[in-house]
Amino acid sequence: PDADAIAAARARNGQLTKPPGALGRLEELAIWYAGWRADPRPRIAKPQALVFAGNHGVVARGVSAFPAEVTVQMVANFEAGGAAINQLCKAAGADLSVHAIDLDRPTADFTQGPAMSEADLMEAIAIGWEAVDPGADLLITGEMGIGNTTSAAAIAHALFGGTAGDWTGRGTGVDDAGLALKTTVVAEALVANPTAASDPLEALRCLGGRELAAMAGAIAHARVLRIPVVLDGFICTAAAATLDRAVPGALDHAVAGHLSAEHAHAPMLAALGKTPILSLDMRLGEGTGAALAIQILKGALVCHSGMASFAEAGVAAGQP
Amino acid sequence: PDADAIAAARARNGQLTKPPGALGRLEELAIWYAGWRADPRPRIAKPQALVFAGNHGVVARGVSAFPAEVTVQMVANFEAGGAAINQLCKAAGADLSVHAIDLDRPTADFTQGPAMSEADLMEAIAIGWEAVDPGADLLITGEMGIGNTTSAAAIAHALFGGTAGDWTGRGTGVDDAGLALKTTVVAEALVANPTAASDPLEALRCLGGRELAAMAGAIAHARVLRIPVVLDGFICTAAAATLDRAVPGALDHAVAGHLSAEHAHAPMLAALGKTPILSLDMRLGEGTGAALAIQILKGALVCHSGMASFAEAGVAAGQP
Repeated sequence: PDADAIAAARARNGQLTKPPGALGRLEELAIWYAGWRADPRPRIAKPQALVFAGNHGVVARGVSAFPAEVTVQMVANFEAGGAAINQLCKAAGADLSVHAIDLDRPTADFTQGPAMSEADLMEAIAIGWEAVDPGADLLITGEMGIGNTTSAAAIAHALFGGTAGDWTGRGTGVDDAGLALKTTVVAEALVANPTAASDPLEALRCLGGRELAAMAGAIAHARVLRIPVVLDGFICTAAAATLDRAVPGALDHAVAGHLSAEHAHAPMLAALGKTPILSLDMRLGEGTGAALAIQILKGALVCHSGMASFAEAGVAAGQP
Repeated sequence: PDADAIAAARARNGQLTKPPGALGRLEELAIWYAGWRADPRPRIAKPQALVFAGNHGVVARGVSAFPAEVTVQMVANFEAGGAAINQLCKAAGADLSVHAIDLDRPTADFTQGPAMSEADLMEAIAIGWEAVDPGADLLITGEMGIGNTTSAAAIAHALFGGTAGDWTGRGTGVDDAGLALKTTVVAEALVANPTAASDPLEALRCLGGRELAAMAGAIAHARVLRIPVVLDGFICTAAAATLDRAVPGALDHAVAGHLSAEHAHAPMLAALGKTPILSLDMRLGEGTGAALAIQILKGALVCHSGMASFAEAGVAAGQP
């Protein structure tokens, strides 16, 4: 981030016609965004939304309430404009593109060994990397992939320790028996992939999916391009967390868009030092929580960049 | 609300291309809104924002960090488009109007007796009532009035009991000595106005201000017109609470837009049974928290009314 822009944005914030700090989190978000854009008075004009889809071999274990063919069906729904993410991107003025990655070639069942080869991993990361529009001024990444909360839980378990139960939840809505099975599968995944716990990129390769790797690639490229990122929920955050654990500070250009109802999202965000902007019991993925949070970030910026100063408005400032 | 529209909206929600409940609070908000608009598939097209301003005799007691002339200065800032509420209304597509009520005639110091006469109260309520556009499909009310967190704290103390300290906070930012003084003033207000604790409209008359009474009038008229309301922070909620205590259920057409950083807002919302949509440490008033929450409500409605159903999209539903 640009230190001069941060200092100038902070000075501007102190002159705006409001009591100091009265816009709360909005003030902090505006200054953070100004730093990454190297502009003390920026606006969000060109947000980009990327949705990646992948299929997961582990679905054969019965970890999801939905059949694997729903992934390709939902991709068609995204392309036809019928999903929640379509509506929220349109409302936020975000340019949405959908990238289905080898849906007819699921990852391997990671309870038996690595989900992906190194070549598969690099290919998926590259798809994410290339999908970022260098002209965008904000990025959100979302996903679709039946079985991918199991993948995200296994990654979180590898990165952050604890027990499989700490990181495994109901996803799209499995019952008690489904949750018990899913927890067992997550534990087995760590046993079958001993390198995952000591190397974050190995966790992504062995336990991830193509859509998670693509999200990580896109978020990393955004960092290089100084495009601020709004993280979505549990799966997006797990993918992003591999970057943070590989390179400390790698997510400084990212904020948490929302707190998912998936219970393990809260401890994952806490481990990353991120406070979610929204908390609305959402657990859909697709980038929906992040897309909604764009509106809050836009609100922060229109206030910061559009408000009059005390001097401009002829308003008396408060007691020092 | 319209029971048929609620039933139809609930049925529609169950068919949309997402796992049941995956949009969390957005689903509940969409169904609530559909009921009040008597339309199972509504959109928010014409939100209205009303900002009322008033001056308070109690300011002579030194309860605010800002001088009383800031009220009229900020009204000029609203009219020139320079305040936070201007930026947020523009972003939300809300039609904003500002109503300054007798700024050169502050209410009486309520530590000495009633803030307003019955005629003053009725006049201010009528200004709010008349300001509502019957063609609006959503209403937010905001306020400006140096000293009005003291008024709101006194109203809350009268309506909800407890101690003066329970309801008194730093407002725009008074120091420890200021907070102690303000707490004393709130306690004195209840002693000087013995009818306030037993009659909610007496609380509004004796302890309120013209801008609080106008907000109450606008919110009541919205109820009659079946226009859903998003409440703003501490002061707006205190004004609205007088309606709820006078007529149970009078705020069923209202949701809490945000949780203010003013500490007494949380217990007041709890007493009203309202869960805030946003919690961003804001404490500016003007309607800013509510204006930001319009975007969340809009997001809920574009999902509800714009998404495809499982059948329309050819997507397989999950396990029953």
